[in-house]
Parts: sequence; C-alpha cells; structure tokens
Amino acid sequence: MKNTNLQDYSHKRYNILTGEWVLVSPHRAKRPWQGQNEAVSNKKRLTYDEKCYLCAGNTRINGEVNPKYTDVFVFTNDFAALQTTSPKFTVNEGLFKAESEQGICKVICFSPDHSKSLADMAVNDIEKVIKAWQKEYKELGASELINYVQIFENKGAVMGCSNPHPHGQIWSQSTLPNEVDKKNTQQLSYYNKNNSSLLGDYLKQELKKQERIIFENDSFIVLIPFWAVWPFEAMIAPKRQMSNILDINNHEVLQYAEAISKITKVYDKLFNTSFPYSSGIHQAPTDGNKNKHWHWHMSFYPPLLRNATVKKFMVGYEMFGSPQRDITAEQAADRLRDLI
Amino acid sequence: MKNTNLQDYSHKRYNILTGEWVLVSPHRAKRPWQGQNEAVSNKKRLTYDEKCYLCAGNTRINGEVNPKYTDVFVFTNDFAALQTTSPKFTVNEGLFKAESEQGICKVICFSPDHSKSLADMAVNDIEKVIKAWQKEYKELGASELINYVQIFENKGAVMGCSNPHPHGQIWSQSTLPNEVDKKNTQQLSYYNKNNSSLLGDYLKQELKKQERIIFENDSFIVLIPFWAVWPFEAMIAPKRQMSNILDINNHEVLQYAEAISKITKVYDKLFNTSFPYSSGIHQAPTDGNKNKHWHWHMSFYPPLLRNATVKKFMVGYEMFGSPQRDITAEQAADRLRDLI
Ligand SMILES: O=P(O)(O)O[C@H]1O[C@H](CO)[C@@H](O)[C@H](O)[C@H]1O
Ligand SMILES: O=P(O)(O)O[C@H]1O[C@H](CO)[C@@H](O)[C@H](O)[C@H]1O
Repeated sequence: MKNTNLQDYSHKRYNILTGEWVLVSPHRAKRPWQGQNEAVSNKKRLTYDEKCYLCAGNTRINGEVNPKYTDVFVFTNDFAALQTTSPKFTVNEGLFKAESEQGICKVICFSPDHSKSLADMAVNDIEKVIKAWQKEYKELGASELINYVQIFENKGAVMGCSNPHPHGQIWSQSTLPNEVDKKNTQQLSYYNKNNSSLLGDYLKQELKKQERIIFENDSFIVLIPFWAVWPFEAMIAPKRQMSNILDINNHEVLQYAEAISKITKVYDKLFNTSFPYSSGIHQAPTDGNKNKHWHWHMSFYPPLLRNATVKKFMVGYEMFGSPQRDITAEQAADRLRDLI
Repeated sequence: MKNTNLQDYSHKRYNILTGEWVLVSPHRAKRPWQGQNEAVSNKKRLTYDEKCYLCAGNTRINGEVNPKYTDVFVFTNDFAALQTTSPKFTVNEGLFKAESEQGICKVICFSPDHSKSLADMAVNDIEKVIKAWQKEYKELGASELINYVQIFENKGAVMGCSNPHPHGQIWSQSTLPNEVDKKNTQQLSYYNKNNSSLLGDYLKQELKKQERIIFENDSFIVLIPFWAVWPFEAMIAPKRQMSNILDINNHEVLQYAEAISKITKVYDKLFNTSFPYSSGIHQAPTDGNKNKHWHWHMSFYPPLLRNATVKKFMVGYEMFGSPQRDITAEQAADRLRDLI
C-alpha cells in the first residue's frame, strides 16, 4: 500500500547511494508556468548531414577524417577536458588546495545514421554500443594513469549537446570525481557492515513493493529511484551484483540493451518528442582493487517537467539548498509504466 | 606571482567550504560552440505592467491584491514548496528513508519598478532590500519550526525565473538542506581545530594574493573564489566574522549594498546584457545555537560563458562526475575587475 503522506505533503527523501537528500513538494505541481519555454524541433533529420563532424567520412574541425564506419565509432575528443600530457603538480598553500588531473576523453558515435537516437535504434545495435563501452572501460581502465572511467551521454540541445548525431562521451581520469566518491563511500560502508550490496538489497525491496518499477527482464530492473531528483529520472540496474560492466555476460548484454531501448522509447512517448536527458554509468573505479562493494547502474537525468517545452530548473533553492521536485517518484513511475 | 600550472593544465581545486572538488580545464576554452543559444531580450521594460502579478496594486493568481507598495514588499509564496500545515511523519522502512519537512516560503519584491534589477537600483534602495532580508531572517528564524532560512534570487528566464519583476525568494525550513549542511560541517571542524573562521582566514590569504579580488570596501570583499564552479561565479563576504546578516551594523549595511551594486553592474557590463544568475546567502542555522563557526556570505552563480547567448551547461560529466569549468577563476576575476 502506498504511503499517502508521501503523495500529499512536503518531505525529504534520503539517497542511500550519495547520502544526500531531495526535497519533495507534491502539492506544488499545480502552480502555473509563466517562465521560459524550450524550443522543440520535430523536424525530420537526415540520415547523413554533410556539415556534421560526427557523420562517417566527414572531416572534423582538427582536419582528421572520420572512417566510413558502419556501426559504432570511437575517437579521442578533439577538445578534451582532460589530457595525458599535463605535468603532475600540487598546490597546498594555506587554504588554497589544488591538484593536477590527468585523463583521456573520448567521443563515441552510436550509429552512422545521423537521424537516429538510442530510442530509434534496434536492440541489436544498442548491443554494439554496450560492447564498445565495455571495450573502452577495459582499455582505459588498464592504463596506470586512469582510476575511473565515466561513460555518459548528453542528449538534446537543452542538455548542452552541440550535435544531434547520436553520440556519447567517455571521460576517464586519475582520481574519483565527487559523485563517484560519495557512492563509493556509501556502498563501502554498507558492504563492510552487511556483507552484501547496498543497491542489490534496495532492488529486492523495490521488487517487493512494485511501486516504482517501470520494466524488468531476467537480469535488469528499470525504475524511478525512491530519491529521484529530476522529474522523470530513471535507473537501470542489474539484479545480480556486478561491480562494473565487464561482468555482464552475453545474454545480459542483450537484456541490458532491451532495458535501454524500453526506457528511451517510453521517454519519447511521454511528451511526444525526442526526450532530452543526460545519462551516465556509475561503476567501480579502475584502481586495481576488487571493489566488491560496487553495484554498477545507469541513470537518466531528463529535465522536462510538464511537456516538451517546460523543463524543471535546478536553480536558486536547488543550488543553495538541495534539489527539489514537484511530482513524486511514484507518480512519475505510474505515468511511464502506462506507456511501456 | 601567479601559479602558471593553474592557468595552463587540467587540475582540480578544493572547495574549503563544501569539501568538494571542481575540475578546471583551462586549455578547453578554445573549443567552438555549435550548441544551443539562449534568447536575449534587450527590449526596454515598462516601469509598470498590468499583467505582472508582482506589480503594486495588481491582483495575484489566488485573488489577493498587492498593496500600493513603494519600496520592498514581502508576501507568502502562493505556491509554496514548504508549508507549516503538513503533518510530521517519518518513513524508515529498510532502505526507504524519508522525513516530513515543514517550512514557510516567501517572495520579496525588491522595488515597485517593474523595469529595474538590483544593478539598476540606487544603493539606498538596495539597503532597503538588505533590511528586509534581516527582518525576515529574524522573524522566520524566531519560529520554533524554522531552523534554517535560505534567501535567494533567480534572475533571468534562463535561470527559471518566471517573472522579470525584480524579486527574490526566501525558503525557510526545519532542517538544514544539503549544501548548508556541508558548509556547516566544514566550518565547524575548522573552527574547533583553529578557533578561528575558515572563511575569515581564507579572505586574509586572498587579500595578500590580490589575484581574485574584484572589489573591496572597509567591510566587504567581492571576489571569485579559488574553487568557483560557474564561469563568473562571485562571492561577497564580510571581512570580519559574522555568523548571520543580523550582525551587520548600519554602516556595514551601506557597504554591503555598495558591494551588491558593484558586482551586479559589472555583470551587466560584461556581455552588455541584463546578466542572469542565481544568488543566495549562506548563513548560520536559526536553531538557537551561537554558531560561532559560521561566517555568512553571499554567492552569485551566473550561467553565461562566452557572451549573452552562450551559457555553460552543467550536464553529463558535471552531473555524474563533478562540476567542470573552462576559464580559470583568475581569468574571470581579471575580466570583471577591468569593468569596475
Ligand atoms: O518559484 P519559481 O520562481 O516559480 O520557480 C523557480 O525557482 C524555484 C526555487 O529555486 C525552483 O524550484 C523552480 O524550478 C524555478 O523555476
Ligand atoms: O563536450 P560537449 O558536448 O561539447 O559539451 C557538453 O558536455 C560537456 C560534458 O558533460 C560539458 O562540460 C559541456 O558544458 C556541455 O556543453
């Protein structure tokens, strides 16, 4: 039975993975919107665009020519935020504290077809993307320099994506970034205490409740986490504990691809638009340790709130206080589940 | 002398107030922008708009009529995210953890003049805004229910502001939100160890360096913090330690108003546009304790990066990893200082 207080009154929910809170104000969804509307383009895109620097055979800004790739194509980011060539240094001068950070940034084109997003791609083609992620995680992680590999996608202009060609990024680096560090700490302390996976135990409770699950197959669950921040934030997690995506076997790759296909298709249906989001995979550091406390998962942070043009702004209170949401995780799950 | 490594190579900087890191990639500012451009309106606004629900004498959505106010006007938010009437409850069911949250949300109109922003207002009129903040902090904080008062402003459509009439908000609540909790912890542990103010000691070091300071008067410093996240993020802080804005004396109120006037005017000059931002005051909880470890400060988080239409997107890597910036704090300070 649903806890009705959680549907009716302001409250905060605890994120077991980060140790932080989100403020939920269910009654607030009624307020009228007079603010900025986002532009939507429902223009049909071409399968090839001669001006796109990600399309097969085209020349990039630095003069390199893309191969005539036929499925997935990975290359080093021409404007990488992290580089291998920077010197090592430390600043430790009173209250000024800084450290050099080395890394490798890559771009991964999901398909040569300029017009497609993951939602439009066949499950078999999504499998190829997953296999490329595995290859990159393995190769980058094997480097002495790299202790963490962040795989992510920014989709849609409203998410700062500067090119509609279906692609994601991989930023890999020497140290753990903030968000990963938090999840590392929370999972480790739970594992040390309970000798089992924090996320795994949570998923078991979600399976019993059946309130926030949108889709499941043998190996994966797609759900709106109890502590979701973004209006239609979702998580894909493997049912059995795996610390990173190299542990996924062939059958599971297919099931993972199916999960990605389901959630992205449902998103597109929700507001009848190519749904913008940032997605990312949080998984074990590549520091050479076993990291048995890690249970990898993929999250989607989509900004849209009411329709294709009105997004949730994480500003003001959210920047200075804590994230805040209006519709509850359960309401979001109900709406998405209906569209599966 | 400037540390040139910090201007040339990727590194991360430590935020002493939150305990978190920001990734800085100085070489990356050169990448071309092919993404979304924000709309700018340089349309001259009227001093009174009959359709504005914040203008004096107008009727709000809930039927209430605004008084014919002549300086500052404060009222309870018609669509408050926090309410006093919600019941107290706790959810503590395995890994589901939630708590009711009570609070009071207010709106504060800075001026009856619909066309003005803080940057356009006289220093004397900004003083009235500060005095209203003091009154609200005092009154709200006096309530048994309220242990923290978050004063903030969202300015500009790109910051989710739904009405251009100059106004800010105050969300007050029973518990400390995430960001405040972090700053509380960091300041307390420093204070316990050193018996002095973390931010106060930092400001002394900044005064010696003179690398990131944009403006100062007897009582206040305006600077780009060493760990700034947003391209032109700035902080206003009192030189002497004060835990909250009630400690500001009359002379200091004027000096604080001058500091606000300077930074907002400089912002508008930078890209020759009414500069969008979220600003907020972090100060001591109103929990009845002395909170001697607190040193209040006001921060500005403006999204614009290159010009009036290109903003920095905090997406993808930033959401899953950590905040990332391209121009360094020192470069930003140099540019703003030149415009004072
Ligand atoms: O209250 P407003 O101005 O309608 O709304 C704005 O500020 C709030 C507080 O920062 C945010 O929660 C909203 O997302 C934003 O659009
Ligand atoms: O690398 P891109 O696609 O040019 O840039 C985009 O993704 C990056 C990584 O999330 C962000 O730092 C940028 O702000 C965003 O515009």
